[in-house]
Amino acid sequence: MVLYNVALVGATGAVGQKMCRVLEERNFPVNDFRPLASKRSAGEKIAFKDSQYDVEELTDGSFKDIDIALFSAGSSVSTTFAPVAVSEGATVIDNSSAFRMDTEVPLVVPEINRSAIESHKGIVANPNCSTIQMVLALKPLDDVFKIKRVVVSTYQAVSGTGKEAVEELIKQSNAALKGDEITSEVYPHQIAFNILPHIDVFDSEGNTKEEMKMIMETRKIMALPDLSITATAARVPVINCHSESINIEFENEAPPKEAKKILQSAPGVAVVDDPENNIYPMAITSSGSNQAYVGRIRRDESVKFGLNLWVVSDNLLKGAALNAVQIGECLIS
Amino acid sequence: MVLYNVALVGATGAVGQKMCRVLEERNFPVNDFRPLASKRSAGEKIAFKDSQYDVEELTDGSFKDIDIALFSAGSSVSTTFAPVAVSEGATVIDNSSAFRMDTEVPLVVPEINRSAIESHKGIVANPNCSTIQMVLALKPLDDVFKIKRVVVSTYQAVSGTGKEAVEELIKQSNAALKGDEITSEVYPHQIAFNILPHIDVFDSEGNTKEEMKMIMETRKIMALPDLSITATAARVPVINCHSESINIEFENEAPPKEAKKILQSAPGVAVVDDPENNIYPMAITSSGSNQAYVGRIRRDESVKFGLNLWVVSDNLLKGAALNAVQIGECLIS
Repeated sequence: MVLYNVALVGATGAVGQKMCRVLEERNFPVNDFRPLASKRSAGEKIAFKDSQYDVEELTDGSFKDIDIALFSAGSSVSTTFAPVAVSEGATVIDNSSAFRMDTEVPLVVPEINRSAIESHKGIVANPNCSTIQMVLALKPLDDVFKIKRVVVSTYQAVSGTGKEAVEELIKQSNAALKGDEITSEVYPHQIAFNILPHIDVFDSEGNTKEEMKMIMETRKIMALPDLSITATAARVPVINCHSESINIEFENEAPPKEAKKILQSAPGVAVVDDPENNIYPMAITSSGSNQAYVGRIRRDESVKFGLNLWVVSDNLLKGAALNAVQIGECLIS
Repeated sequence: MVLYNVALVGATGAVGQKMCRVLEERNFPVNDFRPLASKRSAGEKIAFKDSQYDVEELTDGSFKDIDIALFSAGSSVSTTFAPVAVSEGATVIDNSSAFRMDTEVPLVVPEINRSAIESHKGIVANPNCSTIQMVLALKPLDDVFKIKRVVVSTYQAVSGTGKEAVEELIKQSNAALKGDEITSEVYPHQIAFNILPHIDVFDSEGNTKEEMKMIMETRKIMALPDLSITATAARVPVINCHSESINIEFENEAPPKEAKKILQSAPGVAVVDDPENNIYPMAITSSGSNQAYVGRIRRDESVKFGLNLWVVSDNLLKGAALNAVQIGECLIS
């Protein structure tokens, strides 16, 4: 069995930690394991496969003898160090948005466009969490019914922002319940018991970067550069797992029962759809799971051929760490 | 000044209590005030205009000498007792869904279709909370740009379910933060730190009654019986105020700047839209306010003429008590 030297940039972050667990669980054939992080985190210990590893400072030379470098430390780190990793001989799987729309960089959800990996020139990009769970549901339906237009509204958990956001939600929730003063550091406003229609920065048109990611990345992954799609992204007081209300207009008739069947056999998707018994996808029941859960599959009568779906997935797993490791599996297969 | 004898059915409930406050604040010309409730709540005290009133049991004869009867005690109570109130000489303003789609009963948001009240035959219906805040934004835009289709996803607060749901959210949040066991009584699943794509009962097509209310009531209020509209209603762990992600396709060009201007002068609407400074409508800043707050007004590029909006309003005030009292003001004016 061939083993690979794997570096993990951002090893101490929320997604980095999940990547460790996913590499272990999936028995990724790791030879040397090298956790990397900023100077601030260097020296911390990271547990991996029954051993403790010292986190090393990310620097030029960090990727010597590395085969696969998983990056999960934000765009600026990726922009600087992904090319370094490539020049030092590693293949980069980048979880940041730095290279996603780069025409030279494949943007991959293995269940959807695995073959796109083949054209990589050293970097493969991991899509945005909200995008991954959406395309898992859209692609199999598009294959059969052909999508005309998508309108999506998200209900995104704080874990997508990072560990400090989870702490802020917990801290603010405690304060609110006690009637104490609430301070916001991670988000511009209170997230506890509130909804923020604001994820990432606003552009001049009034869209957020998160919304534009969902639009642009979906088009790229599905190889539908002209796909009509609009998105509204909102942060909700949920610890983990993003929920999405997805409305799809099709070119062809898309009966809910047929859509359900298609989704039941779609890779990476699990249908959870028994409303009579109050069974539908939820954040709290999806946390820790690998799939995108799809439910509330029902006809939208406002267009000739339309469906509404409710899609929930663990944004740290399929939305980030799992998808990245799956890309790694494709690279070595 | 003419004074009116006012009965309030469901006086001890969350909306009933808000109705008391709104009647006071707006100096509704009340002569006799008669709080009514189920046998269980009879005998409780209700504060109104510096006096304490005994809650009387709702029964035949409860509406003797009553001019206006505000009902906020659920559909079955309204179905039974609204006709009683009418036969005893009162005009009913009903906050339940019992009569909303009755062709003999006007369904009124005064800012939108005040004149519909004139045709009433004893009962005027108050729309669903989610519908009211949506039509306040839709109608002025439809007047100018003509709406082709609406796709709405809601983020609804627990106060819409009632006081016991607010208590459940608080209790479950406390339990979750302490790591204690969580029990659900009001909702079928945990609402704390979770999203439920489920409000009211499911129909055979997989839509909830809440979603169908938003569709049918919007068509009736706006007098657009064929309006293309689809809805997904979700419950979120927020105490008060519903948020809505509203996508609108128009027949005519609808520039965001023009839409903003139109909404700025629309009755019942306040525009809160300065994303550069992180200013947009939010639940926590809308609670206790009378208006529907509209922000994130931006172009939807997925159709020829489209806009996305984010609308937040206090579901107990404009979504219920305030709108009902405003209907009362129309009745007596």
